[in-house]
Amino acid sequence: MTSRLFSFVAGGAGTWTITSVKPVTGESLPDAARLSVIAGPVEPRPRDAAWILRGVTSNTRYTTRAEKDALTAAQDAIGRPEATRAALIPIRKSAAWWDLSQDERRRIFEERSRHVTIGMKYLPPVARRLHHCRDLETAEPFDFLTFFDYAPEHAQSFEDMVGELRATEEWKFVEREVDVRLAR
Amino acid sequence: MTSRLFSFVAGGAGTWTITSVKPVTGESLPDAARLSVIAGPVEPRPRDAAWILRGVTSNTRYTTRAEKDALTAAQDAIGRPEATRAALIPIRKSAAWWDLSQDERRRIFEERSRHVTIGMKYLPPVARRLHHCRDLETAEPFDFLTFFDYAPEHAQSFEDMVGELRATEEWKFVEREVDVRLAR
Repeated sequence: MTSRLFSFVAGGAGTWTITSVKPVTGESLPDAARLSVIAGPVEPRPRDAAWILRGVTSNTRYTTRAEKDALTAAQDAIGRPEATRAALIPIRKSAAWWDLSQDERRRIFEERSRHVTIGMKYLPPVARRLHHCRDLETAEPFDFLTFFDYAPEHAQSFEDMVGELRATEEWKFVEREVDVRLAR
Repeated sequence: MTSRLFSFVAGGAGTWTITSVKPVTGESLPDAARLSVIAGPVEPRPRDAAWILRGVTSNTRYTTRAEKDALTAAQDAIGRPEATRAALIPIRKSAAWWDLSQDERRRIFEERSRHVTIGMKYLPPVARRLHHCRDLETAEPFDFLTFFDYAPEHAQSFEDMVGELRATEEWKFVEREVDVRLAR
């Protein structure tokens, strides 16, 4: 297995308590009590798993050198002791998005939707790790899984950030999104 | 399984006769007599398989709208009856490549190495299908598998094309490349 694979297992066990599961666009995910975030695969499938989502961290796809350096300088890795609130937000984009060319996707992503610029405003309080699922060999229900964590005092910042992103042109291409909130 | 997964199985059976297996950079692959190109997974692993490589077709990563349209208009799908010669060229790029930002990779890929421009010159005689392996959950030995096919009278064109590409700045980031030639 690649060391870049992460598994998100919802069920009866795990570090994180699932505080809510809300559909933003399209079908939701089943409710569950707890979530485990596991570096690597999960086999065999735990008998009580409500759902398992998997994705791999990978190279950046849209950021310029200046943006990449600015993000790297500003961001913390997830897992800070004070970050006792978290969110797992799985997203699937439409076929129309994936049929766009790279320059068209970049233009929507940043020049028109300010995806990096919006995310930067909330660093370092909101940390994130992006996982890709679109190019796994299995047919996955989502294209991306983003895991965020933050301290309780930054909960409103997190709401502001997801609100800003969901109002962008880029988000018109999101055909399924579920918002899973977590606490520990 | 995703319908975009392809498996390349080298062993005693398959449509294609393997005429040569040559290392271009780094370690080669074991010799074998024949190659099967299978749409989908191969399980269980055939007992006589010398090697199996897997990859998924995916969205474009570097081309602009104008380039994407020009390629789509000019190219044929692989599998034409007259295309009785083929090549499977697995490639792995270095960590330094994957650490570049998108704009840096694009600049090397096209503005400095003319990857699309070179490929275009040989369309439609040389058809190709690109498969990505870097973001599969399994640790794969290559990042990309490109399958090409062409009629015997275009064999020299194919040599010219791979020669041109291998002389580019982009290819300095290739740390493993094997050239598997095929006939049917």
